[in-house]
Amino acid sequence: MASLVEAEELDARDPLASRRELFIGSDDPSVSAYLDGNSLGRPLRASAARLASFASDAWGSRLIRGWDEEWFDLPLSLGDRIGAITLGAAAGQVAVGDSTTVLLYKLIRAAVDARPGRTEIVVDTDNFPTDRYLVEGIAAERGLELRWIESDTRGGVSPAELEAVVGAKTALVLLSHVAYRSGFLADVPALTAIAHDSGALVLWDVCHSVASVPIELDEWGVDIAVGCTYKYLNGGPGSPAFVYVRRDLQNQLSQPIQGWMGHAAPFDMGPGYSPAPGMRRFLSGTPSIVGMQALRDMVDLIAEVGMEAIRAKSETLTRFAVEAVDDWPASWAVELATPREAERRGSHVTIEHPAFKQITAELWRRGVIPDFRAPHGMRLGLSPLSTSHVELWNGLEAVREQLVRL
Amino acid sequence: MASLVEAEELDARDPLASRRELFIGSDDPSVSAYLDGNSLGRPLRASAARLASFASDAWGSRLIRGWDEEWFDLPLSLGDRIGAITLGAAAGQVAVGDSTTVLLYKLIRAAVDARPGRTEIVVDTDNFPTDRYLVEGIAAERGLELRWIESDTRGGVSPAELEAVVGAKTALVLLSHVAYRSGFLADVPALTAIAHDSGALVLWDVCHSVASVPIELDEWGVDIAVGCTYKYLNGGPGSPAFVYVRRDLQNQLSQPIQGWMGHAAPFDMGPGYSPAPGMRRFLSGTPSIVGMQALRDMVDLIAEVGMEAIRAKSETLTRFAVEAVDDWPASWAVELATPREAERRGSHVTIEHPAFKQITAELWRRGVIPDFRAPHGMRLGLSPLSTSHVELWNGLEAVREQLVRL
Repeated sequence: MASLVEAEELDARDPLASRRELFIGSDDPSVSAYLDGNSLGRPLRASAARLASFASDAWGSRLIRGWDEEWFDLPLSLGDRIGAITLGAAAGQVAVGDSTTVLLYKLIRAAVDARPGRTEIVVDTDNFPTDRYLVEGIAAERGLELRWIESDTRGGVSPAELEAVVGAKTALVLLSHVAYRSGFLADVPALTAIAHDSGALVLWDVCHSVASVPIELDEWGVDIAVGCTYKYLNGGPGSPAFVYVRRDLQNQLSQPIQGWMGHAAPFDMGPGYSPAPGMRRFLSGTPSIVGMQALRDMVDLIAEVGMEAIRAKSETLTRFAVEAVDDWPASWAVELATPREAERRGSHVTIEHPAFKQITAELWRRGVIPDFRAPHGMRLGLSPLSTSHVELWNGLEAVREQLVRL
Repeated sequence: MASLVEAEELDARDPLASRRELFIGSDDPSVSAYLDGNSLGRPLRASAARLASFASDAWGSRLIRGWDEEWFDLPLSLGDRIGAITLGAAAGQVAVGDSTTVLLYKLIRAAVDARPGRTEIVVDTDNFPTDRYLVEGIAAERGLELRWIESDTRGGVSPAELEAVVGAKTALVLLSHVAYRSGFLADVPALTAIAHDSGALVLWDVCHSVASVPIELDEWGVDIAVGCTYKYLNGGPGSPAFVYVRRDLQNQLSQPIQGWMGHAAPFDMGPGYSPAPGMRRFLSGTPSIVGMQALRDMVDLIAEVGMEAIRAKSETLTRFAVEAVDDWPASWAVELATPREAERRGSHVTIEHPAFKQITAELWRRGVIPDFRAPHGMRLGLSPLSTSHVELWNGLEAVREQLVRL
């Protein structure tokens, strides 16, 4: 039986337990359980200080000189650091900038144009909405067809399902590493190999996995990956996304939003667009330097503890959640919508019940904050560095109390 | 003769003089003249405090609930406020989000698609690089032609020049309100009427005018405008841009980056993209909430003092700069590259001399910070709320001292 005592014991044995205090709000009595770090990570205390000093020291005192001294390179230098610490990417393959949606648009466009003559994009029906809406629009404007994998909302895409649809017509396969609903963890190397066997490129959306699941983009042979920084990278609401492009592919790709920051000589301001070599060509406008500040602290913290420890804690947390839900009476009909084996899921656990919309609203008012996903999924997002087992237990107990009252 | 005494007198009579102290760095002895507010405005002291409290209070304590409580509406509510205070735009016509480049891409694409059968985009050769590079790419991908107005780098586009190129084939005219090099202030109502007479849409880039020159988009009948917030709106490096779309045009335009934040029902996460009615359809991904914080303080300050007082101060500043440069010996061959009449220019003055590249580098080391634009332009960007006449005099004296040494 999962219990408060067990949660306390797990916290006592957790080598990352002390890191929780580094986050703002971890001692806030009005929020007894924050279980939505997979939508918006908590701020580090260091980030509040960094944002204030950024305004007074960097922006306020270096003024426009900051661009020459640091900011012009920041999209690439911060990208390298995210790449090294969370993506298994050698330097020169990651850039930070734009939103996830805009980066996906640019790279999907670039990828399909790099496979002329191929007329199909493969995508799954349970991919994140933005990914699906984007390929709909791009297929229409480029005269391409979409091949949908009808994926299980409680699982994800399997190698067999992908094999059934890819072929000589496939330009691009667009998949998510961790499914946003179920938490299903895809087999990236196997699926990438299948796409490559047919000559297609693969774009992995790593929004729901980066910084909670170890990623080895170089080793796995991934072509392109896009991810966000406001979930497990704790960059703050709307912090910029990042893009990885395999080194030998970079100069073969042209993205459509030709802005001055992607130009080979941006400050010449001359006539004619000429894309920069390497990752800079995937930038467009002036990157959000303010938006890049907070996530720097989280990258530093992850570098200190390592992705292995983060994944171990994540698995302990999700196992404890599944165990606790398993203890609830079968008559309540709460269903687990996440793979039962820890190695097949990311860092959130989804449970389903018809009353969860109403229950989530009630819990939010009480300072217990899971996430609700229509039609009746409750996602328990477990942020390995800021979520404790006791916090998770408190949250699960609050859900249980609401279910008892039904 | 322009003099320090005159500068002191102008400051003594300046009704906005006391506002300068509200900005970080205005008392920094290591920067005796910041003359690049047209590239990056100084931070308000209030913004440093706001950024820190945003992390601890809004993000850190409201957590994901912040989206429901404020952030989801912020791109439109902050847009309305920018519109009312700086753009002469009634509510419901402005949205904040993405970079200038990305917003321009989306709206140029939307505009040319709204004029099917028309095959040309009109743009001027001295428009800002991003604007030129974007239309090059869009023309190529949409099978359109570019009609270039060969504009004078010391002036801008005149009604006669526009009349000579627009016609029944023109889908879109893309112009800048204030020319980034010369500071030339375009006659928006006249140029807009000429484009409309030929049935074309007009997109005004107001990056170099917004919050320094009064703008009346509704009254002028403008279709679309895009502007940035890190210059005279002091939002910080890479703060998000804004877009205005005339109300009756909004639902006729479809932008290509179909993301979840532009969907009519974003949290249904259902199949199929359906654009939201009104301005929300021009959003794509998760907007940069952190990046929107600092500019809120500047909008408040502008609301307090009014655009009329800002324009009056801007004209006094640019007049003083021109007067001081006129006093320099003709033998130095420094040329004024900005219109001589104050009502025909924005808030920066450009002077040209072959030594300005080297002189600007030397001045930066000494804490005198103008902007250099190839091949040999020095831009003196005068931010009406944070630049004093004495500061400007100090800067001009430093330039003069460098010229004397040549």
